[in-house]
Amino acid sequence: MNTIKNSTERILLSHGSGGEMMHKLISDVILKYSDSSESNSLDDAAELLMNGRHIAFSTDTFVVKPVFFPGGDIGTLAVSGTVNDLLMKGARPAYLSLGFVLEEGFPVEDLKRILESIGQTCRRAGVSIVTGDTKVVGRGEADSIFINTAGVGDIIPGVQISGSNAHSGDSVIVSGTIGRHGVAVMGERNGLKLKGDIVSDAAPLNEVVIPLLEKFKEKIHILRDPTRGGVATTLNEIARSSGCGIAIEELAIPVDNAVQAVCEILGFEPLYLPCEGRFLSVVDGAFTDEIISFLREETGCRQASVIGKIIASTPGTVQLHTLSGGKRIIDMPSGELLPRIC
Amino acid sequence: MNTIKNSTERILLSHGSGGEMMHKLISDVILKYSDSSESNSLDDAAELLMNGRHIAFSTDTFVVKPVFFPGGDIGTLAVSGTVNDLLMKGARPAYLSLGFVLEEGFPVEDLKRILESIGQTCRRAGVSIVTGDTKVVGRGEADSIFINTAGVGDIIPGVQISGSNAHSGDSVIVSGTIGRHGVAVMGERNGLKLKGDIVSDAAPLNEVVIPLLEKFKEKIHILRDPTRGGVATTLNEIARSSGCGIAIEELAIPVDNAVQAVCEILGFEPLYLPCEGRFLSVVDGAFTDEIISFLREETGCRQASVIGKIIASTPGTVQLHTLSGGKRIIDMPSGELLPRIC
Repeated sequence: MNTIKNSTERILLSHGSGGEMMHKLISDVILKYSDSSESNSLDDAAELLMNGRHIAFSTDTFVVKPVFFPGGDIGTLAVSGTVNDLLMKGARPAYLSLGFVLEEGFPVEDLKRILESIGQTCRRAGVSIVTGDTKVVGRGEADSIFINTAGVGDIIPGVQISGSNAHSGDSVIVSGTIGRHGVAVMGERNGLKLKGDIVSDAAPLNEVVIPLLEKFKEKIHILRDPTRGGVATTLNEIARSSGCGIAIEELAIPVDNAVQAVCEILGFEPLYLPCEGRFLSVVDGAFTDEIISFLREETGCRQASVIGKIIASTPGTVQLHTLSGGKRIIDMPSGELLPRIC
Repeated sequence: MNTIKNSTERILLSHGSGGEMMHKLISDVILKYSDSSESNSLDDAAELLMNGRHIAFSTDTFVVKPVFFPGGDIGTLAVSGTVNDLLMKGARPAYLSLGFVLEEGFPVEDLKRILESIGQTCRRAGVSIVTGDTKVVGRGEADSIFINTAGVGDIIPGVQISGSNAHSGDSVIVSGTIGRHGVAVMGERNGLKLKGDIVSDAAPLNEVVIPLLEKFKEKIHILRDPTRGGVATTLNEIARSSGCGIAIEELAIPVDNAVQAVCEILGFEPLYLPCEGRFLSVVDGAFTDEIISFLREETGCRQASVIGKIIASTPGTVQLHTLSGGKRIIDMPSGELLPRIC
């Protein structure tokens, strides 16, 4: 319609969801000026060699809307998100930074409530906030509050986790029911009265992941938290990185009845809904039962489940064996799914 | 006027400038839930003990308006700011994280230009971007682009820098002319045609600070970059932390003629204007001449100057010996000076 402006590409909401286009742009442009091999993967967490030791380093910015939702708030998310990213690299989270952008007029009482969530979540995760920054912008120049956290932690000795580490015969495990965070936030945003009191799963995973890694070390091949884009997106990323196929069983995927009901009404697909307190793991197939028993009995993940397996065929794709006995390819999402979900 | 809402305190722009009220709120609320000694100082950079080695860790969020200004852009600032915070702790900056908040509709060409600045500034600073995150929010939910960086680096062995390390007889040094960043951004924001082509001093300081620390080690007592609140605020913070007085000579403070002229017209005080590529240092008085010669001849800081000294009297205050022979107390700023300057 407007040919004058056709040449001027602009950022869309969808640039923030899958993130592939944005990642490519950032890495292409920045890598032009960088000689460092560390820059070659702009993962959610990086592994650094400092003084001969392996350290994980990660960052996330949180813009969730609304700021408060059933089961947590932006503060819970800001700590859990970065703590979990470090854990997914096999690291013991230690220290966080905290950067605020506040809109002029934001209620101080709300900030205090968020700070209390941050403090409580830090205590639960065993991490300390050691450095911070606060910027205030004018009314209408930001939407209430945005929080960035970055974190560092030592990688646990003996752990060998990498996104390309899935092998045929490995099992795919999820640590609990999926989709609660997405439904809790979307329900609150839209003023829905949700049945069954669906609360977000947002939580730090250290109490589960650290014992798991200490006990099973190199038997744990991949750890990922299925946040933006959910389980479907994360599994597709694993299939691509490892050059393998993944077959999952619809029947085996734990979904709360209340979440399932909301999804059916609103047309959401649980596999694409974000979780903020769950992890996916690809593990040595021979240790599957032992790992599931450990998760259920020793770490409180009573609904930890084997949801599928790594296969040699159909590399790079994820197939779902449906309840009705059919097969369906689970694709990467396209476009913006749920803006400002974290 | 509105008694119903009187009890509801709200964030003001001034909460972002001096930052004292905000720092106190954050530390008070978070420290309630934290046992860690590392949390006791929410400095711009923290010193961490990881695996028996000393690491500096720092974060800053950048919301500068306008995004592009003479001498740099938000990308130059985002890298320089965190690199310089690490240097001010005596660390060799190594790795950065990068977190974007983008407003829907932001031009992709502008993002590319900013990414190129980030890449070039990283190369100059000898650091790598190793982890990142991008969030997109709707139109009107953020003002174009905000960038957070966090960074880590090893503290240089033998260096002993601390904000409480100023002693009577020490010299106060500034590495170059002050105030250019503040004038460049405010001029651009207000559409002023500034005489003399005033460009921001925004730059990473590694090429100066690392050689200085390697050569003079423990003779360098304090390093600080006078960003928000400028030289006046930073000197007041040093006087308070060290429990000393500071006497500075107006005649000795290097200010570009063009900056001075703009300040006189607009009513700015150069001592309160932010710098983004300068540092203040408190050094062993016996090495003053040697350090100034080194800065001027070996590091290219031709206008590095001794601007004053640490004195035992009037602890906690900064006094200016004026051109006319008088004395004036230089206070901490109150209220919002220059919003969104970095």
